[in-house]
Amino acid sequence: MTETYQQYVEYLQKIADVNYSSAVLQWDQEVNMPPKGAHFRSRQLATLAAYAHELITDSKYGNLLESLRSSATGLGPKECANVLESYRIYAQQKKYSTAFVTELNLCVSASFHAWQQARTKKDYSIFMPHLQKLIDLKRKEADLLGYEQHPYDAHLNLYETGLKTSFVDKLFEGVRNKLVPYITQLLRKQQPEDNFLFKFYDKDKQWNFGLYLLRQLNFDFDAGRQDISAHPFTTNFSADDVRVTTRISENDLFEMIGSCIHECGHALYEQGLPSDDYGLPSGEYLSLSIHESQSRLWENHVGRSRAFWNHNYGYLQQQFPSQLGNISAEQFYKAINRIKPSFIRTNADELTYHLHVLIRFEIEKEILAGKLDAKALPEVWNAKYKEYLGIDVPSADKGVLQDVHWSHGSFGYFPTYSMGSFYASQFFHFASKENPDLMHHIENGNMMPLLLWLRQNIHQYGRTLLSDELCKNITGEVLNFDYYFNYIKTKYDELYA
Amino acid sequence: MTETYQQYVEYLQKIADVNYSSAVLQWDQEVNMPPKGAHFRSRQLATLAAYAHELITDSKYGNLLESLRSSATGLGPKECANVLESYRIYAQQKKYSTAFVTELNLCVSASFHAWQQARTKKDYSIFMPHLQKLIDLKRKEADLLGYEQHPYDAHLNLYETGLKTSFVDKLFEGVRNKLVPYITQLLRKQQPEDNFLFKFYDKDKQWNFGLYLLRQLNFDFDAGRQDISAHPFTTNFSADDVRVTTRISENDLFEMIGSCIHECGHALYEQGLPSDDYGLPSGEYLSLSIHESQSRLWENHVGRSRAFWNHNYGYLQQQFPSQLGNISAEQFYKAINRIKPSFIRTNADELTYHLHVLIRFEIEKEILAGKLDAKALPEVWNAKYKEYLGIDVPSADKGVLQDVHWSHGSFGYFPTYSMGSFYASQFFHFASKENPDLMHHIENGNMMPLLLWLRQNIHQYGRTLLSDELCKNITGEVLNFDYYFNYIKTKYDELYA
Repeated sequence: MTETYQQYVEYLQKIADVNYSSAVLQWDQEVNMPPKGAHFRSRQLATLAAYAHELITDSKYGNLLESLRSSATGLGPKECANVLESYRIYAQQKKYSTAFVTELNLCVSASFHAWQQARTKKDYSIFMPHLQKLIDLKRKEADLLGYEQHPYDAHLNLYETGLKTSFVDKLFEGVRNKLVPYITQLLRKQQPEDNFLFKFYDKDKQWNFGLYLLRQLNFDFDAGRQDISAHPFTTNFSADDVRVTTRISENDLFEMIGSCIHECGHALYEQGLPSDDYGLPSGEYLSLSIHESQSRLWENHVGRSRAFWNHNYGYLQQQFPSQLGNISAEQFYKAINRIKPSFIRTNADELTYHLHVLIRFEIEKEILAGKLDAKALPEVWNAKYKEYLGIDVPSADKGVLQDVHWSHGSFGYFPTYSMGSFYASQFFHFASKENPDLMHHIENGNMMPLLLWLRQNIHQYGRTLLSDELCKNITGEVLNFDYYFNYIKTKYDELYA
Repeated sequence: MTETYQQYVEYLQKIADVNYSSAVLQWDQEVNMPPKGAHFRSRQLATLAAYAHELITDSKYGNLLESLRSSATGLGPKECANVLESYRIYAQQKKYSTAFVTELNLCVSASFHAWQQARTKKDYSIFMPHLQKLIDLKRKEADLLGYEQHPYDAHLNLYETGLKTSFVDKLFEGVRNKLVPYITQLLRKQQPEDNFLFKFYDKDKQWNFGLYLLRQLNFDFDAGRQDISAHPFTTNFSADDVRVTTRISENDLFEMIGSCIHECGHALYEQGLPSDDYGLPSGEYLSLSIHESQSRLWENHVGRSRAFWNHNYGYLQQQFPSQLGNISAEQFYKAINRIKPSFIRTNADELTYHLHVLIRFEIEKEILAGKLDAKALPEVWNAKYKEYLGIDVPSADKGVLQDVHWSHGSFGYFPTYSMGSFYASQFFHFASKENPDLMHHIENGNMMPLLLWLRQNIHQYGRTLLSDELCKNITGEVLNFDYYFNYIKTKYDELYA
């Protein structure tokens, strides 16, 4: 490696130090911080963020990248990929003027605060003017960043390099044309019994069962830990320190189980990234949708499978004999897979989940195109919930105010959730094809073959290629909705037979 | 306030953000971090430290301070004190060359690592060459920083502004001439029974009793929390987020109780600092000895008092009926105050503790004066333990290798421990004089009058004056060993009567 490349590595690792430090402060904020600590914690995070931004937009760093780009002699393909990705981020960051960043940050702060209030009071009008200002800035941001076809592309691109609105449109055609009618068809059938999932389940016993699952899924506790937080999340401070959180509701058993397996999927990805490439693109997760593919794959393809519960249900039953003593593994399997149209995205089942995302996608696209403003949002929102899910939204907190994303100024994030599920199905299809015994191993509690396949095919590459390229390498084509649809159709035809 | 002063405040608060961020990472390292996280955590901390150093030695900041010093119009006394203290720190930091800082940091890293190994293997020779190199650098550092009388002054001054070796010498004359013979005299008497303190005490019950004590001492749990760590410590990320840790040994009841009250004393000080002055000297603790005065005051003058246990012993007995059922409050009071010469400083009683510090003080003074080198240390150490405590050190881990301080390059820190105790006695004397009912309130479980006195007389001032000045304001004179000696003489004459 050249000396210039080594300089670049050191500089990037310094930026990573600062960003991971912020992540520690954020994790602590969600997991440990006493209430009065919030005020000064905000400014500590702001100072670290400003320093990271200063480092990443420093023109001396830009010159370093330029000189690496212009003379890449001595660099291997991984090193070249790192430089190109770093340059992309550098160039993207340089498009923002300081004035714009300041205005956006102030607006986000105010919006987030207003959103919290509005949600508590179930009163959209508190949030509305802030959201409109944010929308105006987001439209400006799209112009600032530039786009070829649709202003929404500029935002999608912030979460998923190269993603276009037209591509998501095509994906969601599948949701609209195949999934929506299929759900309607299933909803007409007899629904499996699931009342027993909502009995009283002791917190400590649930916690221990969650740890048992993490161990079974090969979460490395020497390189991570689990804690409790209000909203489950995964974060990491290197591949060697990955933190998951869960929440436990004593009247909803699968909430903890589902979120525990989901976050573990994220964590296994982070623990599987090459830690020698700390701070470099080759040591980072590929994209949000690929990250989500890992959590969904473990949550749905493993954690909601019959094989998984054939192995684990006996142990679960032992922990909760009075609640589950009379329930068979098969009944349990059916209950945790029952579909139920509902208001809240994060509680949705494996099928209706994508209708929630579809609605947000359609709305965001219209917003960025300048065709929809904050004022009309609740009406549009409620109409779409009626149309796609057949339900009447009772109040704004269960409707347009439910998600934090817009208050943070995140437009373009939601589609990656559904794409993650679709990628999961496509990857799992090939993992199973290459390992015909995969489900058999899972039925025996041996999750290692699947993890090794993911490490080998996905984790080891970090961010040295695009999601599309990764997908093509593994499956021979780009993301294709049919893998997901075939998977759920086979599963649910049988389940609801 | 002038605009320049406002700029200074903002700059200083930014430095505080970075330093408090480091503190969060360090706290997490001790309390939560999984083992594999250590490697990258070190570099994250190093990056933040480098940034803080960069900020604090920036000559633009120096110019700002210069201009405030030269024209202090519009500034009140607090603002002037802030500027002067900031300038002092700036000027001190500027004395270090980058080359020296780098050399010192590398040496400290290697020394700390070697010390850990040496301690585990009970083999001083592993640590010795590193310590010698560190000693050489510390002598250089004294020259670099400058001093009037003794090179050790330069180091004392890093922990306690204005402190001189000659002053500590005078204090420790009291230890040598009064405390040492008094301890010898007590050791000849019948010792109180304390076996029952070392029975089995359940971890969870101890933890809950510790929380009960923290609540009674008015620790604000909305602005702090307690956790478990290998070595108890207190840290804070603002006056509104103060973290204490404790450790629990199931075969030593008072270890947890003592450390819990001690750390709470530190925490009450931090929680009592003016949070509006975040990041400014006026919002920071005064000095290490004043910090220690707060922990020792609560630990010894309250937590080892008869009044305190008259109030709390019944409840403690209820928690541990089989261990303490036959033990009276008076027996308990005597047991926790029993003196016992021992090898380890951190486990020492209220009296022999100062002999441990005296030994380190004498050694450090000789080292800085160039009269003692690393090679001769164990021999000198062991001879002094024989002389002052009458015990034969069995191995280096129980002797010269026991404390982490030297491996960190901290010379001049130890005296502040004893000074803290002496200040505690002097302050408590006046607190009791001004509030004749103080012990009566404590006997009723009401700790608020004492806390309010400390807030009023000590906490509110932050670092706007020197330890000497604070002490004179409260007691009419500077630190005087006799307050401590009179306190323990009265207490122990009665205890050992």
